Amino acid sequence: MNYQHNFNTTISDKDVFSEIVREKEDVGYYNLVHQDSSVFKEYASGVKQKNIVVIGIGGSTLGTYAIYKFLKYSKNLTKKLHFLETTDPVDIKSKIKNIDLGDTLFIVISKSGTTIETVSIFKYINSLIKCDSSNTLVVTESDSKLNEYAKANGIRNFEIPKNVGGRFSVFSAVGLLPLAIVGIDIDELLDGAKEVYDSFFQKGQTYKRVLKKARFFVEYKNSFNINVVFSYSSRLEGFNKWYIQLWGESLGKVDINSTRQGLTPIGIIGPIDQHSFLQLIVEGRRDKTVTVIKVDDFDNDLKIPHVKLKGLEELDYIDGIEFSSLINQQADATIESINNLNDIPCDVITIDTIDERSCASLMYEYELLTSTCAKFMYINAYDQPGVEAGKVILKQKLKTLEK
Amino acid sequence: MNYQHNFNTTISDKDVFSEIVREKEDVGYYNLVHQDSSVFKEYASGVKQKNIVVIGIGGSTLGTYAIYKFLKYSKNLTKKLHFLETTDPVDIKSKIKNIDLGDTLFIVISKSGTTIETVSIFKYINSLIKCDSSNTLVVTESDSKLNEYAKANGIRNFEIPKNVGGRFSVFSAVGLLPLAIVGIDIDELLDGAKEVYDSFFQKGQTYKRVLKKARFFVEYKNSFNINVVFSYSSRLEGFNKWYIQLWGESLGKVDINSTRQGLTPIGIIGPIDQHSFLQLIVEGRRDKTVTVIKVDDFDNDLKIPHVKLKGLEELDYIDGIEFSSLINQQADATIESINNLNDIPCDVITIDTIDERSCASLMYEYELLTSTCAKFMYINAYDQPGVEAGKVILKQKLKTLEK
Repeated sequence: MNYQHNFNTTISDKDVFSEIVREKEDVGYYNLVHQDSSVFKEYASGVKQKNIVVIGIGGSTLGTYAIYKFLKYSKNLTKKLHFLETTDPVDIKSKIKNIDLGDTLFIVISKSGTTIETVSIFKYINSLIKCDSSNTLVVTESDSKLNEYAKANGIRNFEIPKNVGGRFSVFSAVGLLPLAIVGIDIDELLDGAKEVYDSFFQKGQTYKRVLKKARFFVEYKNSFNINVVFSYSSRLEGFNKWYIQLWGESLGKVDINSTRQGLTPIGIIGPIDQHSFLQLIVEGRRDKTVTVIKVDDFDNDLKIPHVKLKGLEELDYIDGIEFSSLINQQADATIESINNLNDIPCDVITIDTIDERSCASLMYEYELLTSTCAKFMYINAYDQPGVEAGKVILKQKLKTLEK
Repeated sequence: MNYQHNFNTTISDKDVFSEIVREKEDVGYYNLVHQDSSVFKEYASGVKQKNIVVIGIGGSTLGTYAIYKFLKYSKNLTKKLHFLETTDPVDIKSKIKNIDLGDTLFIVISKSGTTIETVSIFKYINSLIKCDSSNTLVVTESDSKLNEYAKANGIRNFEIPKNVGGRFSVFSAVGLLPLAIVGIDIDELLDGAKEVYDSFFQKGQTYKRVLKKARFFVEYKNSFNINVVFSYSSRLEGFNKWYIQLWGESLGKVDINSTRQGLTPIGIIGPIDQHSFLQLIVEGRRDKTVTVIKVDDFDNDLKIPHVKLKGLEELDYIDGIEFSSLINQQADATIESINNLNDIPCDVITIDTIDERSCASLMYEYELLTSTCAKFMYINAYDQPGVEAGKVILKQKLKTLEK
């Protein structure tokens, strides 16, 4: 007799970890925590412009926006960060209208260097203002066409290492450079990520947490094919978007057994989406896990005042409550009501304080979680072959378009 | 022998339609298209304030925001519309900072009249500025506590009919009043919705389309439990959010056979999310339908200029293309690449022009589609019992909180 099969089956925690340790030699994002940040800080200290405009899309902007949105209300930033991402003409026009282009530094970010949205917008900017070494930077791979443009025009390039994927690039020049320029402490960012790195690779708490969560998500992926991140702070709106890209694009893949994988990420904001999505979570099909993210210290003492409104006395019990306390009680009530149902997997992440360290450690842990899920799923987290076909079709369409 | 069962099974298109015709007697949103709008226009014409602040959450804001976001770039609106929705103190503070409260009309919107987010924020506003009949309106049910407050203070109330649910209320005072005040043509909105109403109830194109689409979504709900709306314009960002509430909260229910139902809505924006979510659609599990929404005429002639960038010559084929054409080619390339796969259900909605009629007709058709899906699913689209438990827990928590 002769039995043949090509099935590749369940992998142990130990194997996953050794594979990640091995992968760390080739996949660049892991080691970004060891970077020397001085080149970014040095450049940042010389920037005179008030407005920083990042021209980029997807992995070139989402992580930077996530950190900026999380921190900007708590820091006295003297410069403003803007993002030009989409080819929607209305969006481009309305954003540019409010920016003094003469007092702007443009950072053109594209890993491949030929991202069509990015180059289109940059061409348009060139028709509005002269772009040269005084007001333009590029961040791209060393051998890209965009870097050729930079070299030909004496424009500074900060390199994206070849082995760092766009959606894992927030702790490279992609994120660190614009964030350093607007006044975010990038050493604190790197330290926050480094702490998680150490705890993971020294098999500390992070290792245990991440392995357990990834294994759960993958083992139950057929029952719970949707993962909802329910963030109880508007500051986390950017994080949600970044998470959706990281999770969706890394895990939506065909595995080594030619089977379609994918966990669908959804990001919602509390309490707003209590009035939108929560009903579906509570009474709908049991196809969702829920991760609630809370912020312990909102760095804000805004209170509901003791104001009496005739007719509305029944709500006077809220008087004197801090808004930050109210929103956290809302989060806790949601968690409790979900847990009472006993059939929706729900975990809670609490961010202690609003600072660089906490933001970076949350994001780095999500990167590790994504890589670990990918290992359990036998997929490559770092490519995106599914979007290539559309790009080819688009190029064909545009080349034959009458202009 | 004796056979007993309580199964309630498949309903025909004809039955669904007659049930909707019957439901129209009780469910108020259908007939909002027949409203006399003069009361809103009359009030709107007398408003002197430059800023209009809607205080509300969920159904009290999402529809209004969707229409405002869709139209605001194309109209010369002299007033600005703002929304205070969340209890996040950072969000409240940063929004209020930019509004001249002395030149503001506050519209407090809550169907129940005791929405905790809305009352908290309104109390806070009361501590900043005197709220009275000169600068405050309420929109609520006739017998709510909020209306009692209005009566006690001589403040004008525009009523939300009892039988119009929050997420179906955009064409009631909830949406029409603030939109009329900022200068949107609400008669055109109502006409756009009315056209769809007629076509549906006279069994025209809308009827055929809606019935077919709803039946498909419901019949395949176990294979395709996620519905992605992929909107190729940033103008539709508000529509996406409104759709998520409408779809999620209306269809996430337990049906008459005690079985959990629910279709999970996801809203994404092109081309941005080509760089985030598209990979998951294309290579991930086949659990998603995709509805692409395109805008034919962007009302904008912004072009990619003929700018030569040394090193980037390979992209010169995009020179001279209008951005609106580029984004539509991107949409078409995405549609083509999805359809080439042959196993992802994909439909396309094309909006001819950016105006009140098209926006309202799209939204009204989505309301009809939601009601029709609910009929096929044997659920009540108009309640939200799943969020009550959390509200009770919250009240308990807040009442025992030390202040």
